[in-house]
Amino acid sequence: MILLARIRPPPRLLQQHRRNLSAKALANANLGFKRDVDLVEQQALVNRQGDLVRALKARKAPKEEIDAAVTLLKDLKFKLQEFEAASPKEEASQDESSGTSSQASGKRFREAVTNALERRMFFTNSFGIYGGVAGLFDYGPPGCAVKANVLSFWRQHFVVNDDLLEVDCPCLTPEAVLRASGHVEKFTDLMVRDVKEGHCFRADHVLKDFVKDALEKDPRMPAAKRDDYTRTLASLDDFSVEELGAKIKEYGIRAPDTKNDLSDPFPFNLMFGTPIGPTGLLQGYLRPETAQGIFVNFNELLYYNGGKLPFGAAQIGQAFRNEIAPRQGLLRVREFTLAEIEFFVDPADKSHPKFASVADLEFFLYPRAEQMSLKDPVKVRLGHAVAQKVINNETLGYYIGRTYLFLTALGINKNRLRFRQHLANEMAHYAADCWDAEIECSYGWIECVGLADRSAYDLKAHSTASKSNLVASRDLPEPVVVEEFAAVPNRKEIGVAFKANQKLVLEALQELNNEEALEMQKKLESDGEAPLHICNADKTFTIKKGMVTFNKQVTKKSKEKFTPSVIEPSFGIGRIIYCLFEHCFDTRGGVDGQLNVFRFPPLVAPVKCTVFPLVQNPKLDGIARAISAKLREAGIGNKIDTTGRSIGRRYARTDEIGVPFAITVDSEDGVTVRDRDSKDQIRVPLEEVVDLIADMSAGKRSWKEVQGVYPAHVAAKASDETDE
Amino acid sequence: MILLARIRPPPRLLQQHRRNLSAKALANANLGFKRDVDLVEQQALVNRQGDLVRALKARKAPKEEIDAAVTLLKDLKFKLQEFEAASPKEEASQDESSGTSSQASGKRFREAVTNALERRMFFTNSFGIYGGVAGLFDYGPPGCAVKANVLSFWRQHFVVNDDLLEVDCPCLTPEAVLRASGHVEKFTDLMVRDVKEGHCFRADHVLKDFVKDALEKDPRMPAAKRDDYTRTLASLDDFSVEELGAKIKEYGIRAPDTKNDLSDPFPFNLMFGTPIGPTGLLQGYLRPETAQGIFVNFNELLYYNGGKLPFGAAQIGQAFRNEIAPRQGLLRVREFTLAEIEFFVDPADKSHPKFASVADLEFFLYPRAEQMSLKDPVKVRLGHAVAQKVINNETLGYYIGRTYLFLTALGINKNRLRFRQHLANEMAHYAADCWDAEIECSYGWIECVGLADRSAYDLKAHSTASKSNLVASRDLPEPVVVEEFAAVPNRKEIGVAFKANQKLVLEALQELNNEEALEMQKKLESDGEAPLHICNADKTFTIKKGMVTFNKQVTKKSKEKFTPSVIEPSFGIGRIIYCLFEHCFDTRGGVDGQLNVFRFPPLVAPVKCTVFPLVQNPKLDGIARAISAKLREAGIGNKIDTTGRSIGRRYARTDEIGVPFAITVDSEDGVTVRDRDSKDQIRVPLEEVVDLIADMSAGKRSWKEVQGVYPAHVAAKASDETDE
Repeated sequence: MILLARIRPPPRLLQQHRRNLSAKALANANLGFKRDVDLVEQQALVNRQGDLVRALKARKAPKEEIDAAVTLLKDLKFKLQEFEAASPKEEASQDESSGTSSQASGKRFREAVTNALERRMFFTNSFGIYGGVAGLFDYGPPGCAVKANVLSFWRQHFVVNDDLLEVDCPCLTPEAVLRASGHVEKFTDLMVRDVKEGHCFRADHVLKDFVKDALEKDPRMPAAKRDDYTRTLASLDDFSVEELGAKIKEYGIRAPDTKNDLSDPFPFNLMFGTPIGPTGLLQGYLRPETAQGIFVNFNELLYYNGGKLPFGAAQIGQAFRNEIAPRQGLLRVREFTLAEIEFFVDPADKSHPKFASVADLEFFLYPRAEQMSLKDPVKVRLGHAVAQKVINNETLGYYIGRTYLFLTALGINKNRLRFRQHLANEMAHYAADCWDAEIECSYGWIECVGLADRSAYDLKAHSTASKSNLVASRDLPEPVVVEEFAAVPNRKEIGVAFKANQKLVLEALQELNNEEALEMQKKLESDGEAPLHICNADKTFTIKKGMVTFNKQVTKKSKEKFTPSVIEPSFGIGRIIYCLFEHCFDTRGGVDGQLNVFRFPPLVAPVKCTVFPLVQNPKLDGIARAISAKLREAGIGNKIDTTGRSIGRRYARTDEIGVPFAITVDSEDGVTVRDRDSKDQIRVPLEEVVDLIADMSAGKRSWKEVQGVYPAHVAAKASDETDE
Repeated sequence: MILLARIRPPPRLLQQHRRNLSAKALANANLGFKRDVDLVEQQALVNRQGDLVRALKARKAPKEEIDAAVTLLKDLKFKLQEFEAASPKEEASQDESSGTSSQASGKRFREAVTNALERRMFFTNSFGIYGGVAGLFDYGPPGCAVKANVLSFWRQHFVVNDDLLEVDCPCLTPEAVLRASGHVEKFTDLMVRDVKEGHCFRADHVLKDFVKDALEKDPRMPAAKRDDYTRTLASLDDFSVEELGAKIKEYGIRAPDTKNDLSDPFPFNLMFGTPIGPTGLLQGYLRPETAQGIFVNFNELLYYNGGKLPFGAAQIGQAFRNEIAPRQGLLRVREFTLAEIEFFVDPADKSHPKFASVADLEFFLYPRAEQMSLKDPVKVRLGHAVAQKVINNETLGYYIGRTYLFLTALGINKNRLRFRQHLANEMAHYAADCWDAEIECSYGWIECVGLADRSAYDLKAHSTASKSNLVASRDLPEPVVVEEFAAVPNRKEIGVAFKANQKLVLEALQELNNEEALEMQKKLESDGEAPLHICNADKTFTIKKGMVTFNKQVTKKSKEKFTPSVIEPSFGIGRIIYCLFEHCFDTRGGVDGQLNVFRFPPLVAPVKCTVFPLVQNPKLDGIARAISAKLREAGIGNKIDTTGRSIGRRYARTDEIGVPFAITVDSEDGVTVRDRDSKDQIRVPLEEVVDLIADMSAGKRSWKEVQGVYPAHVAAKASDETDE
């Protein structure tokens, strides 16, 4: 599992808890934890040890020394967890669920939301009439509209606002690209197989479920065994494949359904493979993320940007992961939409020109130090966090701030949103700093956006593998005088001597560096010939005197080349939408009992407005139709309802899909507009209503503002209430 | 190939010329054809025979009779083609190219467009640093913006305007779905393989290229041979796999590159296959179209729509086809974006409530009769075409009209757009009527949108395969009294007798129709037992007396169930965009010689506006930045250029990506706004410019209108011209 953290994708977005589980569990449990003396004492120990580990790492202490300190830290944390496990059950089981509400009530809430979502076809199981496929979901009309609104706002908030270079690359990706990125080799989960039936399970899930189940069902388990089980639970994500296999054997764990024997764990690559083209020889995969499409286009994008850094590129698109056993509904799926930004900067200057625009934001950060010392997330001013180097640099800080603004504008509750810094053992070795935007929902704190400073890793990996130089150049502080020794080939002789290989030879000669050129010149003078080894082609050619001469050139260089660093915000759109559903879900009393309402902000609401005539009447119907048509023309999705159902029932139907505004046509020159959340109504002249709804839908005017402009419609409000 | 026409996807959108090539060639050639006496005579023969074939089909004559008439028709058309082949080369070669410009100039034009597109990264070859993959392309920043604008307008024009139910389903699709749709069995191209090297070729391409090449290179070919080759060319798409193989053998055709022997042709499935889940047992494919996701959700969508017909569902998404040998650049790719609508109607009533809104449109139709009788496409009023039954029904006509409005609003030249009706042999047997929106570009007339009335085929296929009833219900003209004989099972006895199978038995009993129930009742009374055969499970159970009784119920039925017909407009977004690039491309003189300009309408232009200060000056720079920021806030992508380059050069840079408006900040209270196409300029007060650009970008106000409101800026225009 640790290996996973070393390549680009796995530990980040949309991968479940591959990080140090114990740290996570502690961090979560901590939220509602009652501290007593023992606990404080143990915390202090963990804190001190955590400080030590960080200090050792900071001064690049020998590996053994760090390892020993980490082992002790784990022991301490394990004891802390054991302590916690001894607390009342409800608290101990909060690992997966919310820290403030119990697991049971979380599940009830989730069921209510899911029912409301399925009832109005926000989503369905894909291919349901054929029995469905685990991990695949369809968005129905309102879900699809929410998604379109979220993506459109994402484009506005990030791409248009910061003039990012958006690209659109295929999902089909040839193996070479994903080999270079590390996915072919390392994008795996450990799997075990039912040796008789062939059923597959995630090895860590099997072990975790077994141990958890045993701990829960057997309260009188001997202390030593409980000790061992708890320790296993705490180190689950640190186990090597061998350790995992040994534990499964040791505990005699069998297939959960059939009770057959299980195979040893083995790595299963999570990419969907499919050959491209008819021969079957070009292996391809469905991309597990969209980022690689940007990296391989780096040179083109830099050129498009006039050769200047910094710049950002963006991509929205589908990505695919062949999960072994998808759980958690919409949160863990096999196909999903990502929106990713790769912001390229000079590693020597990671400032951001617009940082000041977000510096004064205050929200919850959960820095490494707070996690290690078991403290709560802290509400902090972004500018302060960057100035204190809690967040590594301005550009990373800028995107954390913009992400905060993005998520809260969508309707994510800012008190259930935190930015959690990766612990040292969660981060890839090359990463400078990583933060996850985590949103709390009934499944617990879910990573929905990953924000990472990945240094130059990706561009370097593709430069090496593709033999293209993915580099930018910068002005030197002062011009440097360079002596260059350049080969001047005799094309004719080389052509005659090397025929089909002449191009290869010519290129290799031109790429000789100063030392190599000098050496060849010497050899040619002394021996009359010199070997030219071409690494890429693994061939050696003999160059004879006369085929090449050398020219000494003294040039002034004012620029130098370098590989840019990349700061990557990566948004799991489906996860954000699911959390949004939960945060916006509410119920209220109505004529038919409890009614569901989604309190979507107008910006993301699937339908912005309903239009109905107060009574069935051709004139009012005609006006309602005209308003509806004008709204459509203005691009505002709306529903017209001329069924003559009671107003209360109509409201209930539209509340269920979160329509923020309702227009009731009750006369020929004016209408009432009702706000979903306050149920307040105002009187608006006919000719102003379309612009009003357009402005409110686009977030240009708020209901509060509008209430100051138009008179209230009190009578109608009362009838609405009683009608409901 | 004919088989292909019988299932849903292949002959339609994004499949090349699987239709009767001779008819197509004639239709195209016809556009610029010089008629003489011989030709007129031959045409008359073809016309008469065409009429006969249609008449025979109309009165459902015996198959042999129709076949004989079709064979003769083909012969006649072949002779006509032969005649045409004898015409000067430039004209004869117009099959693939435009009808009005020669192939050579078409290619030159295409190269100029492609260079312009690549130069400014409208698109690139995907994974170029790894050598690229045939048939895969990336959209760079301006291409991506054009695509986003096209899709956003599509959503506005179709989904919002007609309140369609948009869904979003995965690309990954389990085999059962695509088996039901016919893709697993029939979605194939015929392929031949180089027996030594394994290289693959499309069998029809190999034959076509060989014959064309021979005809072109050997003008003194004996008449009989020429005759045979021309006949082969004309019947290429009608050949069976055996006939194709026989021709390749007969002509001794070898692999084009290696000259090795070729295998016999065999069908190659064009879907990308990939197993879903870790066991490898659930075969999946990448969807070749988005439509199936809608069909399998039919019941949910009908419910969402309150059980009412008609309604339309829509989907935008990626689709995949593993082309054997992608040609034609952006027109034939392995991964592409489709936007599809499935409009469900009662087969007994295909009227459309909004048909009147498009009835008065006039544009080019190319009905079957005109194609068969070698006439030109006709410019006709849509209402007339539907009234005359040239177009089968109002709903199909409505979508043809809306498609015309959509494409021309994007910037497609209405004189290079036609709606061509499928010939009888191009259509699937179940289809009621099919039309392609064809756009003329340098590759010839390209089908970019398919519009088909597919009758009830798709819903019936999925009903059968999934055993779900995908049906709607309608009111009967008068209620009908129905005697129903319903089984009342004794659950306990059945449970005891059939244990694991009890559910199966109970369901089967409940599904007995009147006759079956009566028969069973009789048998039970006479023999004491009766067999119950369950087809789906292929099992027979013995039902004993006492396990079931029967109840006669007399009910009044006021509704009946039926399978809706579906009318399907299917948009190949990439093809439309490529044709748009060609139609908008232009060149004009400038200071650096010929300059490229894309004359995109503001609606699709990737960047709506540039902002530059007239001279480098902190005050003007500040104003320019403020305008740019306000435009961004309003969601209007814009470029700011404070480099101080000459105005003419700045215009040239932005013309290259088709920016329609330029704001020059030349004072502190007003700006000039320049229109790309006319180069006219107007003076606009500072505080009005953002709204003005917003309105023009959204198509709310035209440049012409705006010119009437603001004063012209003549001096600046002159300087602009000289500067260029």
